[in-house]
Amino acid sequence: MIRQPYYAVEPWCLRETEIALDLLGQSESVFALGNGHIGWRGNLDEGEPHVLPGSYLNGVYESHPLPYAEAGYGDPEAGQTVIDVTNGKVVRLLVDDSPFDLRYGNVLEHERVLDFRTGVLDRRVLWESQGGKKVRVRSTRLVSLVQRAIAAICYEVEAVDTEMWVVVQSELVANEALPESSGDPRASAVLRAPLVAEEHSGRPTGAVLVHRTARSGLRIAAAMGHQVQAPPSLDETVECFDDLARYTVTAVLKPGERLRLVKYVAYGWSQERSEPAVRAQVEGALAAASRTGWEGLVDEQRGYLDDFWAGADVEVEGDAEIQQSVRFGLFHILQAGARAQGRAIPAKGLTGTGYDGHAFWDTEAFVLPVLTYTVPQAAGHVLRWRYDTLPQAKERARQLGLKGAAFPWRTIAGAECSGYWPAGTAAFHIGADIANAVTRYIAATKDTDFEKTIGLELLVETARLWRSLGHHDAQGRFRIDGVTGPDEYSAVADNNVYTNLMAQHNLLAAAVVAERYSDRASELGVDDEEAASWRDAAAAMYIPYDTALGVHAQADGFTSHEVWNFADTPPEHYPLLLHYPYFDLYRKQVVKQADLVLAMHFRSEAFTDEQKARNFAYYEALTVRDSSLSACTQAVMAAEVGHLQLAGDYLAEAALMDLDDLEHNTRDGLHVASLAGTWIALVAGLAGMREREGTLGFKPRLPSGITHLAINLTLHSARLRVEITADTVTYSLLDGPSLRILHDGKPIVLAEDSPVTRPIARVAPMTAPHQPAGRAPRRRESAL
Amino acid sequence: MIRQPYYAVEPWCLRETEIALDLLGQSESVFALGNGHIGWRGNLDEGEPHVLPGSYLNGVYESHPLPYAEAGYGDPEAGQTVIDVTNGKVVRLLVDDSPFDLRYGNVLEHERVLDFRTGVLDRRVLWESQGGKKVRVRSTRLVSLVQRAIAAICYEVEAVDTEMWVVVQSELVANEALPESSGDPRASAVLRAPLVAEEHSGRPTGAVLVHRTARSGLRIAAAMGHQVQAPPSLDETVECFDDLARYTVTAVLKPGERLRLVKYVAYGWSQERSEPAVRAQVEGALAAASRTGWEGLVDEQRGYLDDFWAGADVEVEGDAEIQQSVRFGLFHILQAGARAQGRAIPAKGLTGTGYDGHAFWDTEAFVLPVLTYTVPQAAGHVLRWRYDTLPQAKERARQLGLKGAAFPWRTIAGAECSGYWPAGTAAFHIGADIANAVTRYIAATKDTDFEKTIGLELLVETARLWRSLGHHDAQGRFRIDGVTGPDEYSAVADNNVYTNLMAQHNLLAAAVVAERYSDRASELGVDDEEAASWRDAAAAMYIPYDTALGVHAQADGFTSHEVWNFADTPPEHYPLLLHYPYFDLYRKQVVKQADLVLAMHFRSEAFTDEQKARNFAYYEALTVRDSSLSACTQAVMAAEVGHLQLAGDYLAEAALMDLDDLEHNTRDGLHVASLAGTWIALVAGLAGMREREGTLGFKPRLPSGITHLAINLTLHSARLRVEITADTVTYSLLDGPSLRILHDGKPIVLAEDSPVTRPIARVAPMTAPHQPAGRAPRRRESAL
Repeated sequence: MIRQPYYAVEPWCLRETEIALDLLGQSESVFALGNGHIGWRGNLDEGEPHVLPGSYLNGVYESHPLPYAEAGYGDPEAGQTVIDVTNGKVVRLLVDDSPFDLRYGNVLEHERVLDFRTGVLDRRVLWESQGGKKVRVRSTRLVSLVQRAIAAICYEVEAVDTEMWVVVQSELVANEALPESSGDPRASAVLRAPLVAEEHSGRPTGAVLVHRTARSGLRIAAAMGHQVQAPPSLDETVECFDDLARYTVTAVLKPGERLRLVKYVAYGWSQERSEPAVRAQVEGALAAASRTGWEGLVDEQRGYLDDFWAGADVEVEGDAEIQQSVRFGLFHILQAGARAQGRAIPAKGLTGTGYDGHAFWDTEAFVLPVLTYTVPQAAGHVLRWRYDTLPQAKERARQLGLKGAAFPWRTIAGAECSGYWPAGTAAFHIGADIANAVTRYIAATKDTDFEKTIGLELLVETARLWRSLGHHDAQGRFRIDGVTGPDEYSAVADNNVYTNLMAQHNLLAAAVVAERYSDRASELGVDDEEAASWRDAAAAMYIPYDTALGVHAQADGFTSHEVWNFADTPPEHYPLLLHYPYFDLYRKQVVKQADLVLAMHFRSEAFTDEQKARNFAYYEALTVRDSSLSACTQAVMAAEVGHLQLAGDYLAEAALMDLDDLEHNTRDGLHVASLAGTWIALVAGLAGMREREGTLGFKPRLPSGITHLAINLTLHSARLRVEITADTVTYSLLDGPSLRILHDGKPIVLAEDSPVTRPIARVAPMTAPHQPAGRAPRRRESAL
Repeated sequence: MIRQPYYAVEPWCLRETEIALDLLGQSESVFALGNGHIGWRGNLDEGEPHVLPGSYLNGVYESHPLPYAEAGYGDPEAGQTVIDVTNGKVVRLLVDDSPFDLRYGNVLEHERVLDFRTGVLDRRVLWESQGGKKVRVRSTRLVSLVQRAIAAICYEVEAVDTEMWVVVQSELVANEALPESSGDPRASAVLRAPLVAEEHSGRPTGAVLVHRTARSGLRIAAAMGHQVQAPPSLDETVECFDDLARYTVTAVLKPGERLRLVKYVAYGWSQERSEPAVRAQVEGALAAASRTGWEGLVDEQRGYLDDFWAGADVEVEGDAEIQQSVRFGLFHILQAGARAQGRAIPAKGLTGTGYDGHAFWDTEAFVLPVLTYTVPQAAGHVLRWRYDTLPQAKERARQLGLKGAAFPWRTIAGAECSGYWPAGTAAFHIGADIANAVTRYIAATKDTDFEKTIGLELLVETARLWRSLGHHDAQGRFRIDGVTGPDEYSAVADNNVYTNLMAQHNLLAAAVVAERYSDRASELGVDDEEAASWRDAAAAMYIPYDTALGVHAQADGFTSHEVWNFADTPPEHYPLLLHYPYFDLYRKQVVKQADLVLAMHFRSEAFTDEQKARNFAYYEALTVRDSSLSACTQAVMAAEVGHLQLAGDYLAEAALMDLDDLEHNTRDGLHVASLAGTWIALVAGLAGMREREGTLGFKPRLPSGITHLAINLTLHSARLRVEITADTVTYSLLDGPSLRILHDGKPIVLAEDSPVTRPIARVAPMTAPHQPAGRAPRRRESAL
């Protein structure tokens, strides 16, 4: 079965050739622009119709009370929810007396293109007004990757065959009405109009609005400036109110004449800085952008992206959809993290309000592996953000009766915002996921400054958590009881294998780095006894294994639980959590997302090949993939154990999550971790890349649909290229000093411009494992 | 250490000899009157000062939304909270121009006495007004155990040494202001003024108010009528409004003259009946009570209680406090259940708003054992209430994906109202607790009509729940995974021993009774295969046992968990749940209340003597008794394994829970199950009473402080008396056909009026087990 994609399949862009108003929510997300600081959903310039009129600033949220029917000690009392900041995207058009609105008149042509190399969203429309006047509208929009505070729009309108009046209204709009998003009426009330006006002021061709959030106390400024080219009949005005600033330009256009408006929008926010300071900041950014000019911004954007793709591109031959989607994913991951600088990467990036704008473990476990090998400085910034939240994580640990740092399951600004602890706070593995991201980042970058400051402290405080969370039992085994692993269909279990193995890595890494920087470690209070206690706990870590079945139990007792009745679960009852109570899911063998299988990816060396094959088959039969974080990991392990067709199927599922809207919620924002999963499925899956103690190894193997796969990676300021065909792999060091890697476990030392080619052994065909009834991935029968 | 009790220690009454306004909340609870239908807290007649002005009707509640920070499928959406109905207790007094109020003027004498034999609350006051006028006030109050809808007050005021005007205002007050009781402002808003006026009407000496609850739609009527005796200067008026009716009588009293007012109050409520019907109901009840007259009501009350005590009294010599408190407890249990007739017995009875007025498993597990052997028809009524809620319990099971009936963890009207499922819905043991109460009731009453209708259906539907909740594992063991036992410091564990043993009993009992009434069972859809599947599951029931430690694990894995750090837990951090998160409590060895120890009481035959001794000692060291449901069970098992001093200590803790306000929350209502626990500690503990397959066995042994213990029980319409001294026990059948019992495991057949005496072997002194640091019970050094 070949899908019929809504978007054209092209290698370097996402093209929508007509507008479908019922898919507007999805297109708002996939056409979103951002730079990690600013996020603009792909809304229509004219503001309406829309599903979510999203304009976001990373870190801007409003607080609201978290309600409980029966509250417990330690339940977080305040939630944090991303809010819409001032919308600077709006450019309205009046043609004679008809407002330009796709719901009226005739849309004769409508195309939008997001170009992954230029980083701009281009829109071209041919529209006939209800009054019968035809106009061509072209708008090009960018959120600058180079000038962090800046977004810009070039808006052109052309009279086609009649003379007409045109009025273009360019706006800043605060406190836009949003659809109700929360089940809790009190939270909704708080979030309904979250911005309190502090200041507004207009200038001849622009304006600035300053607001403050009522409860979280954040100050937000948005400024706009304009440059216009039009026939001499031009007239300009500016109006300014608390929640609205409007620049209006009117002109008479003869057939073939154009009005061209360039709009610069600058954003800033601060928790601490004064109103004049924040206002000056955005006005300064606006001045710089105006001087750069539209073409200058476009050129900068292209230059930034050329650099990025040179060190990050993944080339796929044989499957054009996968080619497109891996670049689509890389582009959006870049947009989510490029300029986050001290802020999180939320689960939806800055593309929507899904999950309240919270960041989860997805960031460290799925997004950072990509950024670490493509835009390492962005990965470093995210870890710096975690570091900045250490005081809150230490306070949370103290509240929970633990030592070290307990990082939040979900948060915007660092405080735990999870209102259901068994699936939130109990998922302590997030600490080890962060530690794992730290060691991976250090291995890839050799950034010793980072290692001895941020890295060391993150490793120490997370290791302390594990040491206090676990204990030795009568047999001397180190147990971690009553915690929740990645699989959200189990909770509060003893000795989750993923958690215990990741904690083991965390404890050892802390001991190693503390030994390496013993002076710094002493300053953090680490002494030899403490480091020894980490090593001891790691060495004694208890890993449940079911000898009767010959598989690892996901956690103590898991394999004795009743197997979920998949046969009697109708397709419309997925995702299960919307149709069955947690109590029922938790007590049975049913897996939402890779958990033990993820452990086999991240802690590959802790399992034998036979264990991997048996475990994979066992958990494959239990895993329903009700999470978008599952398919990529299943692709990785399917490839490793030799199920290449299945690996390809899961790769496609991860890749098409948002482009095909597989979970019917792309309207709420992109699945950033699943986008990362496309890269992971290709790089860790098909290329078999694993990192261990600083060395990268590969074990490539392609499914039949993919004929050629080339991966570009950025390492220690070097660039590595891995080109894979059905029979061979070629490793090339594009620049940098010599590099030792492993091919199929055997070392190769690469020198610059001296590619090394190795044959790939064919994988013998294997019997494919079974998935739960009705939950097999879509078979990727043949490539496009 | 001898405590200094606030209330006088007397065998048949509770006497307060002066008023302490800071203990008002406690005294409102301990002096509460009720009959299972009506509950009146022991508020002062004049209404103020008060802590909680409680007037309740069993089953009257208001609904409110239950909020969740993160809602899950199956979370109950609506809560039910007990509300104050129209307050008919109020009798205000004006002495010349001074309102009678204990906060003003001089209280020269103030005494209140609750008499357990007469069932009235008597109050005598000598008060000097701010104007210097002295009056004697005597009020006597009852809630009739004979006339279910009726409460009454005899109020007398006497001028002591001066002539004075007195004005007595007798009121019905609806929607009284209450202190905020809920953390959720939305629930508080709903509950602030829950009654909507439907009708009010006055008559020459009385009035009726009819209201309806806004959300739950219950109609409530309250009527009052008066009879007055006074000097001829008397003047009477009646006023009536939506939320207030007032009967006022004024008179001039010369020194020594009295005004005597008898107030009759009738209550009724209905979910279905019309306003005229409910109004007629209370007016009819009022007419009957007025014709009975005050003295008639008092005589009826005494007669009812004489009967009760003849079949229920427990006589204790050597410890006057225990003597008083067991009668205090029996009296309040009678008040909670006597006339409940189709309604629940809430955890606080009808004495306060604690736990929102909900009924829990306490009813079946702690209160019904007492009622079954003292007021069996009241026990039957409670089980009938459960039976009436079967449709809701079956619907809840269906929602949870289970068969049979899932009874609610907490409820007023039958719907699950628990807003935290790990400590609510997951505590499925309530089903087996109900089944156990059913078999106990049948064994004690031989009520075959009940057995083949209500009993059979309750047993069948609860057995079906267990059969669908559990499953056979690869070794053929029947497991019940992911549920919560009685200990609320553990949750969602596999194979809780208490739950599995109680489920085993439930499954077998259902099979036995279904076989006995196979025609009726067929009508319920039970066939031979289903009954066999119950027997099979019971036979294969898995009971975790830690062979290394030689003790039963409370649930799978429990004994491998870290032991709570008791040494570093300061005394002010108890109860732990207010100072530590559930996640921490659940994952460690710390026990809130008897769980495995309760299993050893209820399923005594499932453990060897050695297991009991070892288990008791092991869990004793982990049990902190943060629940009032623990001490009595610890007393029972301490006595069985031979720690008699400890049994006496725990007996005293259960007995003094409310009289000494040990948990500082008696103001919210009495701990009805703990009151029952006093009886349980004496009867199941010191007398060693166990029931198995319809036969009662005893194994008496007294701690040194108690010299003589006599227990009266009501059985199969027979009455059994057991008299115990340090050395002998005498069993007497007071009436009824011959009865087979066991003494220390050996049968005795008792005939009427032929007492049998047996010697009691001395228990060898044993080393006492340890409790967690600081959690040993108060040592009962010597008796009063």
